[in-house]
Amino acid sequence: MKLPLGYLYSATYAGIRAAEKDDLALIVSGLPASAAAVFTQNRVQASPVRLSRRNLQRSGGMAGAILVNAGNANCATRTGDAVALSTSKAAAKLLKLPPAQVLVASTGVIGVELDPSKIATALPRLAEGLSPARFDDAARAIMTTDLVPKTAYAAVKLRRGMVHIAGMTKGSGMIQPLMATTLGFVLTDADIQPALLRTMLKRSAERSYNRLSVDGDTSTNDTLVLLANGASGVRPDPKERGKFEEAVAHVMESLAQAIARDGEGARKFVTIRVSGAATDDGAARIARAIANSPLVKTAIAGSDPNWGRILSAAGNAGVAFDPSKTDIRMQQTLVCRGGLAAEFSEADLKQKLDAAECDIVVTIRGKGKGSARFWTCDLTEGYIRINASYRT
Amino acid sequence: MKLPLGYLYSATYAGIRAAEKDDLALIVSGLPASAAAVFTQNRVQASPVRLSRRNLQRSGGMAGAILVNAGNANCATRTGDAVALSTSKAAAKLLKLPPAQVLVASTGVIGVELDPSKIATALPRLAEGLSPARFDDAARAIMTTDLVPKTAYAAVKLRRGMVHIAGMTKGSGMIQPLMATTLGFVLTDADIQPALLRTMLKRSAERSYNRLSVDGDTSTNDTLVLLANGASGVRPDPKERGKFEEAVAHVMESLAQAIARDGEGARKFVTIRVSGAATDDGAARIARAIANSPLVKTAIAGSDPNWGRILSAAGNAGVAFDPSKTDIRMQQTLVCRGGLAAEFSEADLKQKLDAAECDIVVTIRGKGKGSARFWTCDLTEGYIRINASYRT
Repeated sequence: MKLPLGYLYSATYAGIRAAEKDDLALIVSGLPASAAAVFTQNRVQASPVRLSRRNLQRSGGMAGAILVNAGNANCATRTGDAVALSTSKAAAKLLKLPPAQVLVASTGVIGVELDPSKIATALPRLAEGLSPARFDDAARAIMTTDLVPKTAYAAVKLRRGMVHIAGMTKGSGMIQPLMATTLGFVLTDADIQPALLRTMLKRSAERSYNRLSVDGDTSTNDTLVLLANGASGVRPDPKERGKFEEAVAHVMESLAQAIARDGEGARKFVTIRVSGAATDDGAARIARAIANSPLVKTAIAGSDPNWGRILSAAGNAGVAFDPSKTDIRMQQTLVCRGGLAAEFSEADLKQKLDAAECDIVVTIRGKGKGSARFWTCDLTEGYIRINASYRT
Repeated sequence: MKLPLGYLYSATYAGIRAAEKDDLALIVSGLPASAAAVFTQNRVQASPVRLSRRNLQRSGGMAGAILVNAGNANCATRTGDAVALSTSKAAAKLLKLPPAQVLVASTGVIGVELDPSKIATALPRLAEGLSPARFDDAARAIMTTDLVPKTAYAAVKLRRGMVHIAGMTKGSGMIQPLMATTLGFVLTDADIQPALLRTMLKRSAERSYNRLSVDGDTSTNDTLVLLANGASGVRPDPKERGKFEEAVAHVMESLAQAIARDGEGARKFVTIRVSGAATDDGAARIARAIANSPLVKTAIAGSDPNWGRILSAAGNAGVAFDPSKTDIRMQQTLVCRGGLAAEFSEADLKQKLDAAECDIVVTIRGKGKGSARFWTCDLTEGYIRINASYRT
């Protein structure tokens, strides 16, 4: 897949995490890029989240670089604000950018001081290593408990020419992004003004990252950035904006799905569809309640077609609906019709649920037009093993 | 401990669950008793919940018997309402009670038809077995995945004489009661009018069952009943009501704690205290967010003093508070001061966290007077094992 024009990438090991794997990534746009971002809704926000939000305001929605580290969240630390500021400034100086045009993001353990000298020492070789071909290296450097790097691409043919979109993301646990994600960086060479870019980002995040939960925990560091540097020379016509935004949303959906597929300990990717709620938001809340129910997630892990847990979880969403008009399908098999058991072969369905991809479809019959799609994963002993010993 | 006067208990195996252990319990008051109950807030409500609520309205808050089965929730079934009604009526006939004075409760799998003939067949021998000494048998018959029966007692000396309180409860998974619990039955021989009993129950439930979560899943069958039959001949003076209510609340707190201690797969009992929030409700929401965070629960399982997860979970409660004024203690050790790492010996604390009882204390410094106490348990591989194969 062709990457968007005008971006350079680099990665290096700065010694922030113990394991000797790249932990510092840099994304640079050769041209000043329109920039939009959404951040975590957690009341506890990491220093890089606060600084990036401020920088976007100061720069009027422009950015030239994103500096990202893994291995330390730079959150709830004494020196966090100073570290975020000094490292972003050092990068700006090296890259000859206005300081407000450098965004920063961090992921890793909370509450441990991040040594800025490690980043300062690594920055020159990071800048030297910048190349348009090192997109995958950067995607790998931002991983924490992720088992695989996560990238997605799209190309859109517009009247004036082709534009390209590429995204990278990370995340495996502490995943229930709200208005944002864990870390996600989506780049395009289309020419889009900041205000329009923000609108596109918000709508796209709503149907992608905001429809994802691994464990119901919203991180302190969630950051999703969308850059548009115009290097293609192609500005979408007003009539083409929908087509372009659709491609951006598609890339974000692929990235969000990749996170659920790589959920900590996950063996199964689960898609939940809810329709017939009064509103889209109501449908999303029902889907989220199902996705966050440990009893549903463990049933999926055990290939148990226990639809009663799905119905019960839906009932806990705080959304009004009529259980007696509710149908539930698992792997296209009707398991619950009008809130009651449907006739199905439990043995057959159990076998179908052994698949790596599981579908739960909840249909509320009636006049409601609200629908939502949501992604999650099963809950296995692997999640416990990973998280009972994360730091030790 | 002396049981309240004027109650009879019985238990038998009716063949509702596969394992040949008692699965049907009966609690009878020799005198018509004032009765109050709170039920699940799940939108999906089991037939016995709906019938018991209706019976309490019809009887004006009076009850003479409670019929409880384990092994089947009688929820989301075609015949559920008819089964609840016919079995309650059969019990009423046998016990010579008005039909509206029999309450029913069920626990077990959702969505499987409950065969009423099993209960009808068992009822005569259940009634024959009634005895004031079989309180523990009844407590054992209502268990599902519980490892131990759960009971609590209190006696209160009032001016006019002694009154006694005894409670039994069950629950281990699908536990996040809201306004109610899984199943709980609290009996007293004090003489209390229904309206006052309802007030006492609501306040007591709020500080006991409503401060408990094992896995964040609120069941479809949660039922907490309080009966007061006046058999002691003692009616609390208006001035003694507080003292009596305190004893009722104490019994309910003990029962709620016993559920967290016996949480599915739990090895540790966790008490969370939050103070300094703007309101008690805000404090309870912060405590609940911490109790429901899989990352906090797995850290406790691994004896990992990972306070960053606690702070992050608190930030997800949707409650405004200042992280920079927030202190966190685990096992009396200050781990976070003003939102930042405190100095402590990680090795020492790790050892302390190996204990069977863990305390998390969150103090928000400032003017807020809101506080809450909340109970939960750790999240271990045992929870996954139990729930990935509940029905199979």
